[in-house]
Amino acid sequence: MTLAEQHIDTWGWPAAAVFGTPGQGDFVLVCEHASDFIPPYADGLGLSPEAKRSHAAWDIGALDLAKRLSARLNSPLIAGQISRLVYDCNRPLEAHDCIPTRSEIYNVPGNAEISDDCRRDRFEQIHNPFHETVSQVIKAARPNVILATIHSFTPVYNGFPRVTEIGYLSHSDDRMAKACLSQEHKRGRMKAALDEPYSATDGVTYSLQKHGEAHGLLNVMIEVRNDLINTAHKAQAVGDHLAATLIAAKKEVLE
Amino acid sequence: MTLAEQHIDTWGWPAAAVFGTPGQGDFVLVCEHASDFIPPYADGLGLSPEAKRSHAAWDIGALDLAKRLSARLNSPLIAGQISRLVYDCNRPLEAHDCIPTRSEIYNVPGNAEISDDCRRDRFEQIHNPFHETVSQVIKAARPNVILATIHSFTPVYNGFPRVTEIGYLSHSDDRMAKACLSQEHKRGRMKAALDEPYSATDGVTYSLQKHGEAHGLLNVMIEVRNDLINTAHKAQAVGDHLAATLIAAKKEVLE
Repeated sequence: MTLAEQHIDTWGWPAAAVFGTPGQGDFVLVCEHASDFIPPYADGLGLSPEAKRSHAAWDIGALDLAKRLSARLNSPLIAGQISRLVYDCNRPLEAHDCIPTRSEIYNVPGNAEISDDCRRDRFEQIHNPFHETVSQVIKAARPNVILATIHSFTPVYNGFPRVTEIGYLSHSDDRMAKACLSQEHKRGRMKAALDEPYSATDGVTYSLQKHGEAHGLLNVMIEVRNDLINTAHKAQAVGDHLAATLIAAKKEVLE
Repeated sequence: MTLAEQHIDTWGWPAAAVFGTPGQGDFVLVCEHASDFIPPYADGLGLSPEAKRSHAAWDIGALDLAKRLSARLNSPLIAGQISRLVYDCNRPLEAHDCIPTRSEIYNVPGNAEISDDCRRDRFEQIHNPFHETVSQVIKAARPNVILATIHSFTPVYNGFPRVTEIGYLSHSDDRMAKACLSQEHKRGRMKAALDEPYSATDGVTYSLQKHGEAHGLLNVMIEVRNDLINTAHKAQAVGDHLAATLIAAKKEVLE
């Protein structure tokens, strides 16, 4: 498939799905990296089957966790439907890694030599409708809704094991992140930390800033170690834990 | 897990997801059997791993086909998020097979002895929110929107190979089904038939009747043989074919 054909044929796969009922609930949940789906036009990006199923392609377990949270919190969830290796919806077009050529241990051959047209095409057909959907769901929500983005991270990264089980991240308004950590410390069930394993300086708070802080909404980015949520059973347990943390943290900040 | 615990713990997984933008497009797409997800509370229903991934649990390929149609037709899609073996959203509670105890070649042990309370519980927590979501999307649509439900069928059933590639089914208003067939005959690319491999007398037109005919909407149920759509590449090709058929059939009926 030539680059020109890629450009033409990128149209035609949904970028987002909405779970739950917009307008209901105290939270809006966003899961940018919910899917490992690589549309046919991207021709597998030259990846091995192993790489396609790895955390490089998506946040393992994050969708189940976010679905459970959506149901428990009675709050809508917007989930990305295209692998972040095609376009990373938590990055602007300007970011060097919005269409990554390497992700930890895997090269992404299909992204190595794409044209500027193709980059813009993916941005317009994946990033834009995804974020338009998030905007619509937030518009339908009550004015003081809280934005929570749901991510997962790998237990070993570049050879180093990670001890943290759950990270609460912020862009510049850290009220919810700090309240979540304080609730975790009270409950003592999970190894929680602020700004782990990433922080705003790694460029991971794009959605948080765009849909949360830019609209004056309380917000928090949640990172869970993926070995704790890589089955529906596990995701259910962590989801129930996290729902209680979020409800308590909301009270702590607002009351 | 006891039945009593099952009853308590059925809460907490989304029953539906919406792709695309409600209010846009000439069609509303529904895919009741899009998912093979069996929530932890159902404890795998006593099924083998093979049965859980088989067409008994879901309509293989139907979600990819429906997603492609949603994008090509710029029309919203409501997709079920729970396996039909837990509750079949294309059946009312009165149907003997809304919670099947056997599906073609597989027994479903976990459904064999469930209480009436558990049956009603699944109805209220899976059927009801799914159909409420369909109702909301139809309410947001233009008045003359066309309802199309998207299904797949297995190439061999109870030992008999099926020759039909695509079936157009109706409840009592067969205008769209007949127009789709007439378009297929004109195009000559797929082996199409009316009311194959099922028909309304098999009790498969519940959603069609409930959301289409009851509201005076044109409607059609589409059944595609799953060997033609069991990869994203194939689903894309059939989706593009079917989008053209639906657009031409709409013109044939309305002009």
